[in-house]
Amino acid sequence: MQLVIQRLIDHIKKIYPIETEKLGLLEPFFEHRTYKKKEVLLSEGSRCYEKFFIAKGCTHIYYVRKNGTEQTIDFAIEDWWTSDFMAFQQGAAAQFSIRAIETTEVLCISTDRQRELLDKIPELNGYFHLVFQKAYAASQMRFRTLYELSKEELYHDFSRQFPAFMQRVPQYLLASFLGFTPEYLSEIRKKYLP
Amino acid sequence: MQLVIQRLIDHIKKIYPIETEKLGLLEPFFEHRTYKKKEVLLSEGSRCYEKFFIAKGCTHIYYVRKNGTEQTIDFAIEDWWTSDFMAFQQGAAAQFSIRAIETTEVLCISTDRQRELLDKIPELNGYFHLVFQKAYAASQMRFRTLYELSKEELYHDFSRQFPAFMQRVPQYLLASFLGFTPEYLSEIRKKYLP
Repeated sequence: MQLVIQRLIDHIKKIYPIETEKLGLLEPFFEHRTYKKKEVLLSEGSRCYEKFFIAKGCTHIYYVRKNGTEQTIDFAIEDWWTSDFMAFQQGAAAQFSIRAIETTEVLCISTDRQRELLDKIPELNGYFHLVFQKAYAASQMRFRTLYELSKEELYHDFSRQFPAFMQRVPQYLLASFLGFTPEYLSEIRKKYLP
Repeated sequence: MQLVIQRLIDHIKKIYPIETEKLGLLEPFFEHRTYKKKEVLLSEGSRCYEKFFIAKGCTHIYYVRKNGTEQTIDFAIEDWWTSDFMAFQQGAAAQFSIRAIETTEVLCISTDRQRELLDKIPELNGYFHLVFQKAYAASQMRFRTLYELSKEELYHDFSRQFPAFMQRVPQYLLASFLGFTPEYLSEIRKKYLP
């Protein structure tokens, strides 16, 4: 637990100044969980009342299409928060699932515990303000990318911006995220292999 | 000024509880501006150090494609905050422009003034935490929509979710936002006119 809490504390300090003493109070509000590769953190249709700070590992968030295939809409790695945030905010049924791509250690907090935590350390609102502003800002850039780039350009943009992902994420998930068939992704990769 | 500040205060109270007395301190931190239809609030390439609360009116956020045409990526109406938030957060050059679609009254705050405001009323971080969490949550849903729906379905989904927009937003901007040509949008509308 100590190491993962320290990772969260370091992330908070990097983004928003809060006294070390106060951050010492964080631990009991969180649950430390380890998910094995392919284990599910959140299931579409179940009530979503938790959000997850990734201390180690990698997850993807997806929904199931009418034809039964999974569509990945995003990934999360170390120092990211992940959840179905609409469902989390409303305490509603999740419209997405989240699954570990590799062994993943998270700090998990429920809506109720978060309410208590923010009562105790209201300064954390300053941290979350900036975390979500940045997440939303990244979405604005991603919409631009989606309008602007061809499928092949999307692949290059992604590999340029997130080289670490290219190593960690299985090809079929990357293809899903980019809106490709796995075959199309494989063709592009062959074309540009050194 | 009084009416527009009251609109912001009402919005804050709806989202996050802050004492009325404290909210009485808001006014001097904001600049009240009125933009005429087609006037520009933010220009791509200029340094972005302001964000805007829409008290009345409607704006769109867009960038200019290599071929010179404008691509609208989003709209904002009453009670929404709009800016290029990546540029705002970093004090960097904007990668988007924002323009009034109709006469628009905003409350504008700069990064510096916001810092002072949040020092004075740190509770506002709780408000912005929830505002941006919701904006990010809406992005997650929009990514799902973009993966899931055909162009024709996108149109119906948008008109069902945001009927007010259909009346207020010019057709060519709606077409741009949905990734249509204006001709294609006109075809769809004709097909479904009662």
